Amino acid sequence: MKLGICGLGTVASGAINVLKRNAESISGRAGCPIEVIQVGSRRLKDNCDLTGIDFTTDLFEVVSNPDVDVVIELIGGYELAKELVLKAIDNGKHVVTANKALIAVHGNEIFAAAAEKNVTVAYEAAVAGGIPIIKALREGMAANKINWLAGIINGTGNFILTEMKDKGREFADVLKEAQALGYAEADPTFDVEGIDAAHKLTIMASAAFGVPLKFDAAYTEGISELSTEDVVYAEELGYRIKHLGITRLHENGIELRVHPTLVPEQQLLAKVDGVMNSVLVDGDAVGQTLYYGAGAGSEATASAVIADVVDIARAITVGAGVLVPYLGFSSDKMTDLPVLPMDEVVSAYYLRILANDNPGVLAKVASILSDKGINIESVMQKESELNEGMIPMIMLTHEVKEAHINAAIAEIEALTEIEGKVVRIRAEHFSA
Amino acid sequence: MKLGICGLGTVASGAINVLKRNAESISGRAGCPIEVIQVGSRRLKDNCDLTGIDFTTDLFEVVSNPDVDVVIELIGGYELAKELVLKAIDNGKHVVTANKALIAVHGNEIFAAAAEKNVTVAYEAAVAGGIPIIKALREGMAANKINWLAGIINGTGNFILTEMKDKGREFADVLKEAQALGYAEADPTFDVEGIDAAHKLTIMASAAFGVPLKFDAAYTEGISELSTEDVVYAEELGYRIKHLGITRLHENGIELRVHPTLVPEQQLLAKVDGVMNSVLVDGDAVGQTLYYGAGAGSEATASAVIADVVDIARAITVGAGVLVPYLGFSSDKMTDLPVLPMDEVVSAYYLRILANDNPGVLAKVASILSDKGINIESVMQKESELNEGMIPMIMLTHEVKEAHINAAIAEIEALTEIEGKVVRIRAEHFSA
Repeated sequence: MKLGICGLGTVASGAINVLKRNAESISGRAGCPIEVIQVGSRRLKDNCDLTGIDFTTDLFEVVSNPDVDVVIELIGGYELAKELVLKAIDNGKHVVTANKALIAVHGNEIFAAAAEKNVTVAYEAAVAGGIPIIKALREGMAANKINWLAGIINGTGNFILTEMKDKGREFADVLKEAQALGYAEADPTFDVEGIDAAHKLTIMASAAFGVPLKFDAAYTEGISELSTEDVVYAEELGYRIKHLGITRLHENGIELRVHPTLVPEQQLLAKVDGVMNSVLVDGDAVGQTLYYGAGAGSEATASAVIADVVDIARAITVGAGVLVPYLGFSSDKMTDLPVLPMDEVVSAYYLRILANDNPGVLAKVASILSDKGINIESVMQKESELNEGMIPMIMLTHEVKEAHINAAIAEIEALTEIEGKVVRIRAEHFSA
Repeated sequence: MKLGICGLGTVASGAINVLKRNAESISGRAGCPIEVIQVGSRRLKDNCDLTGIDFTTDLFEVVSNPDVDVVIELIGGYELAKELVLKAIDNGKHVVTANKALIAVHGNEIFAAAAEKNVTVAYEAAVAGGIPIIKALREGMAANKINWLAGIINGTGNFILTEMKDKGREFADVLKEAQALGYAEADPTFDVEGIDAAHKLTIMASAAFGVPLKFDAAYTEGISELSTEDVVYAEELGYRIKHLGITRLHENGIELRVHPTLVPEQQLLAKVDGVMNSVLVDGDAVGQTLYYGAGAGSEATASAVIADVVDIARAITVGAGVLVPYLGFSSDKMTDLPVLPMDEVVSAYYLRILANDNPGVLAKVASILSDKGINIESVMQKESELNEGMIPMIMLTHEVKEAHINAAIAEIEALTEIEGKVVRIRAEHFSA
């Protein structure tokens, strides 16, 4: 089987290196030799050995090369990548991509084009790097109605949160270090504001539930406004704050949301630290399963790219075409459910309220919450943090619709005894 | 696609229930309707609704039923199961089994027979219940040279160890409770002596490395001799004791061993409690990935059985035969490596030595270890546990060949200042 690679960045060089190093075992698994015959990149780089591989600066040469069976798209971004992938499909080639933005935003169109040509578009590497989570969702969990899934799917964000918790450092300070270490981009928006995670979450939701990709409707809230104070209070309450992507299936729609979330410290997800990724999936038959590994990196991502290539090789060898539907379900069995508005989402909430040190305030806050049917799980107030007559009041509520907590917060903020905005962070228990 | 099920125990009833409940989504994923048309069991049970399903007490009727496309073997055990599976293969039927003993012991013969008939024998449910670990090893990790894997793959044993740690209870006491709760069999040998885990480990090793199944050569050491005292000391040293199955690839052979193991408490594996299962896999490209979920139970195991059925349905729908090689590698690309003797295995060790409370003893023990090139990581000796002049000395060594630690232990036991046998438990760090 002959591969053409578009792009020559870290994942491409990782793929070329691994395909060379493990050529024997990979072909032993795939049932045929697998060979990279052409690489297209606007610039030649010296990050891997291209001996025996044709190099071109014209990326369209790769997708139109008659000898190429599978095109591997590793240039990233939306426009050129989309053009290349659609051209490859049009030329009857199978496509493997690590491009989460491309699939999350243009996936519906790309899969429709691929279905017409009966070619595979595989995207394991687009979500959670080397963790075979797309395979788990589309294949391993095929017996299940998947109820929900939640994941730490951005290593940069998790590294920052881990440092904030372990060392009490502030967000901006850790971000600078992450940039110096190469974990974060010069413009960190995609990572820290949850856009990258929303791309991946969108893809997982569709593969899990068989709904079309709906990235535009995803709710994203970043970690850049998160205060170390809240990380510390959460810890005292027995929780860790993680930047989670959460999606949940309801009869009338799906939740699709990325935001900082308190997770009980006993949960394995809470114990996933540093740049690692992890996804927890709840299925009606299997219960909860969890997947953990490197969410990024040259060879870790290449591992997923090559797994897709081997899947295609195994199918081609026995004369099969598209084996697993693009989003897990046959296209005529997909369900076009809407994304539910955040007001409809049910969650527990962590609240931090800066209040007068006055015994009557708690009663007033509790009464506002109670009027909205919101139960309080715990309250923490630290006399030691009294400052100019004000004291932070930390609360954890039971589960309630977001519309109700927002209404309660508006009333609380209107109290004269309260200063500034109420800090509100969602909390999930993921009980089995 | 039409299924015939042999057996009507908890997994069979789980499979029938899930196939009925999720019929629509399962066929939407599989690309065709999937229907159980016949169930064979020596006795009719009322654990599920068999409406519309033919029932027979003659199991051989199922494997010879001309309308059955896929036979699901869920009776367990070696002999009859083997006969049924070989007969089904001979009749050109695909086979799905949850029978770890059958695959571990007779898998080589069964796969050879299946290859001749070009039918699939799928066994995801045989290892770690609902966790799609076989899929991860044979497909998701296909790019990698898998270096090693280690797993908590017996829920009964892990439940017992968790109780011993959390509540300081003794093994025999917890075992009785596990039996009462239905987690442990009346005869618990398979679970607590590591035989069940060795079956599963044998299968994972072969699927990971592409070596024939070698259950007979697996080393097994149970948890029945484990003392709560050691569980507590291990915790004080920052470790948990887990009953692990470990397999590691070397150029000249593979390690294949099940035994109690100290694992650093920061490791996710150390945090897997109760009846849950988890497998940590180290690949040369992807690094470490971990898989977690229910290792047993009616619908959790059925989830894996049905995932295998869906794989077969997807392949049949597009006209493909056997898609993924039985043990991950094409049969002509398998490597017949031997299982290495335990003397060759390199591990760190936890030692508990009951010694005279005499300052010279530590020096003597340390000198014996040092003569064998064994470095000491830490020593703990508790004056508070002094009893009739004797005191337990707890040591953790660096990594060393098992032959050397055994030789050192023999010399230590020969010291007049030492009483009884030295307790020796292996420790693994699984550093990334």
